[in-house]
Amino acid sequence: MRIAVMGTGPVGRVLAARLSELGHQVVVGTRDVQATTARVGPDAWGNPAFPAWLADHPKVGLGSYAEAARHGELIVNATNGAGSIEALTLAGAAQLAGKVLVDVANPLDFSAGMPPTLFVKDTDSLGEQIQRAFPEARVVKTLNTLNGELQADPGRLAGGDHTVFVSGDDPEAKRVVTGLLRSLGHTDVIDLGDITTARGPEMYLPLWLRLWTALGTAELNIKVVR
Amino acid sequence: MRIAVMGTGPVGRVLAARLSELGHQVVVGTRDVQATTARVGPDAWGNPAFPAWLADHPKVGLGSYAEAARHGELIVNATNGAGSIEALTLAGAAQLAGKVLVDVANPLDFSAGMPPTLFVKDTDSLGEQIQRAFPEARVVKTLNTLNGELQADPGRLAGGDHTVFVSGDDPEAKRVVTGLLRSLGHTDVIDLGDITTARGPEMYLPLWLRLWTALGTAELNIKVVR
Repeated sequence: MRIAVMGTGPVGRVLAARLSELGHQVVVGTRDVQATTARVGPDAWGNPAFPAWLADHPKVGLGSYAEAARHGELIVNATNGAGSIEALTLAGAAQLAGKVLVDVANPLDFSAGMPPTLFVKDTDSLGEQIQRAFPEARVVKTLNTLNGELQADPGRLAGGDHTVFVSGDDPEAKRVVTGLLRSLGHTDVIDLGDITTARGPEMYLPLWLRLWTALGTAELNIKVVR
Repeated sequence: MRIAVMGTGPVGRVLAARLSELGHQVVVGTRDVQATTARVGPDAWGNPAFPAWLADHPKVGLGSYAEAARHGELIVNATNGAGSIEALTLAGAAQLAGKVLVDVANPLDFSAGMPPTLFVKDTDSLGEQIQRAFPEARVVKTLNTLNGELQADPGRLAGGDHTVFVSGDDPEAKRVVTGLLRSLGHTDVIDLGDITTARGPEMYLPLWLRLWTALGTAELNIKVVR
């Protein structure tokens, strides 16, 4: 499948690399291609500069948000939650129309320090905001409950025996995304319902953040026992 | 141990019954003993009236919030979250001082219908509100992520192989509560940290509510895989 991964951060990178490994034609979208390709030195997370990462993944393409969206039959939003609407606006509503838009972002607000709070919650969610902003896109919220490494390769923890969720208004889009999740190794995918159910997995983040601190590792997930 | 269980609803009943079975001296606290003992016909959840339940559990006592609190070496807050501060105020700050106060309530707001939202979240929690209101109590937030049946008897689901959390400022209080949880059959108790970490398990409730709908059962919990 032709896939656009919006965002050059750690989550975008690991998803792009894994989807490319699985045989998909992946283009990473960024705000300013020239600025991204001119980067030297580690990024804010201490990762290598994006050009070094791109050189190690020669099958992955790079383009503007609009170029990536034009390429993609399926779009993954792996941008910072606070900038997601703007990034997708730059991609262009027309490029998203009719396509599956996989939203893995979290509405984290770091303005008051750590741990972050949520800039939307309880009566709304980032997934819903994106669906409202791009009504012709087929938004599916998923994977936001995991760090990037486990999103891309769940088998590295307990052989993949843990749970992810899908929320969205379009059953066929959820079917496509569930298939993609299974191809990554996700063995337990729970369909929570329409896009308003994205409030649940997004509001789980504060618990995830405390578990990260308490357990001293982000290599964690929850299994829904039932 | 002498235990007070505040609240005559389904969660209070099942916890009181189980703690009594385990040999504790349990008194259930209620706002108005005369009104509670005069009840006939099923309650709002379709459960038998409290007097019928009490007759089936002759070892469990009933008293006002203040009488129950006076009895208890350990207090369990199983009242409705929206009424918890008021109920504990009726119990009396002096009766709570120095005691372990186990808060299992959720800050659910049903005013806009189902699913409920949270009346406190993200930058505060019900656990913290209770700790601030009763600074001499040793508040431990726990069990709010489960329905009453699983709080009291986790072994009925997957042999108890799933996770509960404790949050609180007093390490010794958390040690006491963790021991009590293990005696109920909770095999995996994660100490999240101080009382501010109660925001995590409380904000998990919206996901729990969607899982209940999606799976068609409240007999569910999460196991933290790490």
